[in-house]
Parts: sequence; structure tokens; C-alpha cells
Amino acid sequence: MSDHRGGPVRSEAARIAILDATARLFAARGYDHLTMEGIAAEAGVAKQTIYRWWPSKGALVSECLLAGRLMPERLVPPSTGDLRTDLVEWFTEIFSVMQRPDGEGLVLSLIAAATENVEIGKRLYESLGAASSLTERLQSAIGDGQLRVDAPLEEIGEALIGALLLRALSRNPSDLESVTRLIDALIRP
Amino acid sequence: MSDHRGGPVRSEAARIAILDATARLFAARGYDHLTMEGIAAEAGVAKQTIYRWWPSKGALVSECLLAGRLMPERLVPPSTGDLRTDLVEWFTEIFSVMQRPDGEGLVLSLIAAATENVEIGKRLYESLGAASSLTERLQSAIGDGQLRVDAPLEEIGEALIGALLLRALSRNPSDLESVTRLIDALIRP
Repeated sequence: MSDHRGGPVRSEAARIAILDATARLFAARGYDHLTMEGIAAEAGVAKQTIYRWWPSKGALVSECLLAGRLMPERLVPPSTGDLRTDLVEWFTEIFSVMQRPDGEGLVLSLIAAATENVEIGKRLYESLGAASSLTERLQSAIGDGQLRVDAPLEEIGEALIGALLLRALSRNPSDLESVTRLIDALIRP
Repeated sequence: MSDHRGGPVRSEAARIAILDATARLFAARGYDHLTMEGIAAEAGVAKQTIYRWWPSKGALVSECLLAGRLMPERLVPPSTGDLRTDLVEWFTEIFSVMQRPDGEGLVLSLIAAATENVEIGKRLYESLGAASSLTERLQSAIGDGQLRVDAPLEEIGEALIGALLLRALSRNPSDLESVTRLIDALIRP
């Protein structure tokens, strides 16, 4: 098996090394300072190896984003059975991540990258908005009778995430009381 | 009066020329390509004249933003007496601006500038979020009995604007049906 050079096993290892390197460098330096050369060096592969799969750094960052590799932690909302408690808890956790310099920098870097690159913008929207773990959590709240059956789940998710992005841009995201008022406005039955 | 050189009248004219030039260049080229040299040339003033009042291009863009000079149009929500109708109408107008290439570019440029510069981020938040004409419109809806007296106005405003920013990042802001669902979720009495 060790002569399986260039085959799927080896390819997959290289792909993962490249994605890991992209995520590390993105978190450390931001989108603007990311280069294909730097990623290749960090991953220990040739630059052509990267171009075999990804045409640009934007495409690479998009794939990292879609795979959940760029978020500071896997931020999945808790699911204790009480929606309001879970959302407040979830935002408390997000705020604590965003109050760390690396957390805030990463979120701002992601937003900046999304303004520059259409694909990253679309991925950011998908991973935070419409198809997110937040939407799933809201969906299960309908089953628990805590949201109306016709509640607009995607839109509620977008409103919460959008408000969070706006707060991140103001560098003052951490007003939990305010977010609790927003949650109450959005999820009251 | 014509020998009033360097006095308040002349100063004010120069200030306005500089702010106008900044707004024009920002709209045409975006934040990254904005330079103090370029602004000075466009405004017909010496670069030192700009530095007399503003320490950086970030400070200049912040002031333009606060003065409402960077929005494609003065986007004040209509006030016909029916909140839902007015908000839907307002978003329709915003979408039509954002579907023009210059409108979308300007919004994305503003978001990008806010990620790079703390002051711009704060100003963007103030002018779109908490203290906006949207919040005023929501306030008057309480007087009209169309919103509960304890409705969280700032948070509703942030949710609507935040969702709009998230949509702008996805380059697909124009789903009016979806925004109408969001409006309904936020303002139902």
C-alpha cells in the first residue's frame, strides 16, 4: 500500500493538510495576508498541489468555512428542551469567544473576506444563516411546542445572526440583555 | 469679507469639499483604494489641510458615514401610518438600490471598511442600528398602536438591518417575501 503514490489516500491527506494550514493561517493573519505560497509552505506541499483542487485562496477559504474549520469552536446551540434558555446560553458563549482578541479578529476577518469574495459570502450566509445548526434548533422547538408551527425559522436565524454581525462590526457585541430582548421579540409564541 | 482668508467661511468650504471628495472616491473605488493624496487632489486642497482636521482616512470615512454622505440615497423609511406597509416599501427600495452594481459595491465597501477600522464600525452601527431613522419610525408605530409599548425598538432595528447585511454578504439580498416574513415575525402585536 505504501506505493500507492498520488492515489486517494495520499491525496486525502494532502487535502486535509492544506485545509488545516489555510484555517491556521487565516486565524493567525486574516484573509488579506493569506497567500497560496504561505499555505503551501505551512501545509508542506507544492503550490501546484493546491491549484490541482482550488483555483484561488477564496475557494480554499470557502471550503474551510463550509466544513466548519474557521469557527473558533463548533458553536452548536445547546438543546436542553427550553428554547429561550438555550439561545441565551448560546449567545453567552458566542460573546465570550468574541471578547477574546483572536475570536473577534476571526469574525471580522471572515466578514472582510466575504465582502471581497463572492463564494465566501455565499458560504458564510449558508453556514451561519439558512442551513445552520441554529435553524435546526429552532425547528426542534416547533416540535416542543415552543414556537408556532408557521414561525419563519430561516428568517429568525438570519435576524439573530445578522444582529450579531452588526454588533461585531461595532466592536461591542457583548450586551446580553439586549440580545435577550431580541430573542424574546423573535420567539414569543 | 473677501480677505477673510483661512477664517471660518473658507474653512467650512474646504471641509465640505474634502467630505464630498471622500464620499465620491469611496463610492467609486472603495475603502482599500482610498488615499489621503487622492482625496486632496479630488477636493483641490493640500494634503496638510486634510490632516488639520482628520488624522486618517478612517476618521474621514467615519465622519462621512455619520453625516449620511455615504448612503446611496437618504434611505428614510416611509411614514404612511401603516408600519408593515412602510417597512415592506422601505426594503423594496433598499433592494432596488442594492441590485445596482454601485449600490451593492458601496454597501460591501462600507462593511469591509468597518472590519478594518474601529471608528467606522462604531459609526456604521450607530447610523444603521441604534439611533437610525428606522428606530424613529418604529417609535412612532407605538404611538399609532401598531407596536406594543414595550417592544424592543433598537433590537428590532438591529435584527432588520443585520439580516440585510447578512443578505448583502451573500450577494442575494433581494428576497422580498423572506424579508416580509421577518418583518411580520418582528412586529406582530
